[in-house]
Amino acid sequence: MTVLHARRRENLAALLPAHEADAILVTHAVNVRYLTGLASSNAVVLVRADATATLATDSRYIGAARDVCADIEVVEERDVAGALLAASGGTGGVGIEADHLPVAAYFRLGGDLLRLSGTVESVRMVKDEDEIDLLRTACELTDRAFEQVLPDLRPGVTEKEIARALERRMADLGADGPAFDPIVASGPNGAIPHHSPSDRPLRRGDLVTMDFGARHRGYHADMTRTVAIGEPAAWQRELYDLVHAAQGAGLVAARTGAALHEVDAAARDLIAEAGYAEFFEHGLGHGVGLEIHEVPFLSPRHPERDAGHGRLEDRVPITVEPGVYLPGRGGVRIEDTLVARDGGPELLTRTTKELLVL
Amino acid sequence: MTVLHARRRENLAALLPAHEADAILVTHAVNVRYLTGLASSNAVVLVRADATATLATDSRYIGAARDVCADIEVVEERDVAGALLAASGGTGGVGIEADHLPVAAYFRLGGDLLRLSGTVESVRMVKDEDEIDLLRTACELTDRAFEQVLPDLRPGVTEKEIARALERRMADLGADGPAFDPIVASGPNGAIPHHSPSDRPLRRGDLVTMDFGARHRGYHADMTRTVAIGEPAAWQRELYDLVHAAQGAGLVAARTGAALHEVDAAARDLIAEAGYAEFFEHGLGHGVGLEIHEVPFLSPRHPERDAGHGRLEDRVPITVEPGVYLPGRGGVRIEDTLVARDGGPELLTRTTKELLVL
Repeated sequence: MTVLHARRRENLAALLPAHEADAILVTHAVNVRYLTGLASSNAVVLVRADATATLATDSRYIGAARDVCADIEVVEERDVAGALLAASGGTGGVGIEADHLPVAAYFRLGGDLLRLSGTVESVRMVKDEDEIDLLRTACELTDRAFEQVLPDLRPGVTEKEIARALERRMADLGADGPAFDPIVASGPNGAIPHHSPSDRPLRRGDLVTMDFGARHRGYHADMTRTVAIGEPAAWQRELYDLVHAAQGAGLVAARTGAALHEVDAAARDLIAEAGYAEFFEHGLGHGVGLEIHEVPFLSPRHPERDAGHGRLEDRVPITVEPGVYLPGRGGVRIEDTLVARDGGPELLTRTTKELLVL
Repeated sequence: MTVLHARRRENLAALLPAHEADAILVTHAVNVRYLTGLASSNAVVLVRADATATLATDSRYIGAARDVCADIEVVEERDVAGALLAASGGTGGVGIEADHLPVAAYFRLGGDLLRLSGTVESVRMVKDEDEIDLLRTACELTDRAFEQVLPDLRPGVTEKEIARALERRMADLGADGPAFDPIVASGPNGAIPHHSPSDRPLRRGDLVTMDFGARHRGYHADMTRTVAIGEPAAWQRELYDLVHAAQGAGLVAARTGAALHEVDAAARDLIAEAGYAEFFEHGLGHGVGLEIHEVPFLSPRHPERDAGHGRLEDRVPITVEPGVYLPGRGGVRIEDTLVARDGGPELLTRTTKELLVL
């Protein structure tokens, strides 16, 4: 894997001159892992504009670091950031990750470092094929776990029990763990986008929204399906059909070169035309990879936060997840993980989106 | 639970005058949960010196916030920190959590806030009995999971399979999840304190170190046991007896009023006298609660980081976990979670520490 990581460091190093930085001190654990392959709770890596790098970690991780990062300099030090700055001959021209480094550490390091934002994240946004392979596997595990849990979805089973069953199936299939705590929201709870699974048992007539995913070697799948327990009422089917159509419109709009807010609008406009604009309160989707939420964000709201000038690029995995939430009644959300590609999007979560009546 | 949270906010408010702060903007998610009961990825709470408080969160969590935090003011806002500062009439006299707030957010908020360190953590260090009850349950789940996994510990089973079995048993017993990724280190891997479970199968003649714990309603258990697969060699038993004795010495020394470095020394001195000082490279233990590692830290190294003037206080849960790691050969670590109490320590993990030969 070291060739991969070297290429990633080169991509990062190439961005430094534009920020007038000679080097960047990478402290965010996920970014350290991305650039070096080392997963550690106490490791930092200094990447210089010439693409050389030095990693520092403490005695607990030094053995792993020497194995995994054989192609870069590795130093053992408890005060990882301080050690690297001292080694680099001071703070001049050194950038830090201002969205991650705590204030206290910043001032401890001298308080005169360049405050860079989203620099490693903008490199991470476009995935290499090795990353997409890992994400594809994470999504396959997610699809299979869902299929296996379907028989458990019957009246009397609680939201918590379903969440547990999803986690267990993913683990049994070989996932490293859940990508995040599963959401299982039944009946009126479906109106709460981030509902925590409760002891509420499913009842005939419920819509049940399940938002979950598997984690595979650091990469996060993210999928949501809403199913019906028993024959749905007319309003439930209508709501489902609307969200289903909006999700399809979002998938079609997710072409490389498309403006992020336009992808969001493709789905949102359908929901608004049906009169439900106020009940779709979140963005259409987000990037996904080593973190469950990363750039780019598909939203009408903050295009300025996105790298890539607010347009979808080749090899960028995203979610498309419209929802409509009716307080006190229930809700529907449908979500896929896909990869934007020049040749057309690659859908990674493949579970049917026809309304399943169980 | 709101009476509890109000009391915690009062304890925090009482510390503010000494820091010349009129209020503290609490942004660290675990600390927000501690002070309000709300578990959210985007919520902040401003606690004033008069112990009044205002919480801000976004639309995803606002319903939960209004339920859980019925006794304080709750505002809905996406830019949670900015909203609270605006509401408090500017940044004068407002402290922030400098160990957690990222640099970029600090400067976005004006860059002239008081940089406080470890303030909420010093309140959190001493637990209330409700917290100790939750921790006790987490430790009981941990003990029972270990007992259930013992029959699986036999030659041919891999480290990863054991880690999975521990996680599954804890989940089946009702844990919310693992407190951290379990460590299972067999044979020579036992020499790596933070070893990630591998595909190595157990072999007759191995020592196997398992470091794991259950999470229960936010509280983390932490226990390590080392067992022998088949009759151990003389050097293995000798090593075990040494670490066992050192752990016992640490437990005895963990009295309220004891200096933290003296508790560490009680165990470390035994190991040093046996000639293994250099093979016990980490601190003796750490506080545990809403985070798996929190103050106080039992270590010869950094007493200045600890609240409580470097002494163990009543109702402070800690771990005691000496280990000896022999590169290329293997290692032994034995760890309990206990609560320091004025009447003598309360041991929370109760699994036997006699060497189990399986």
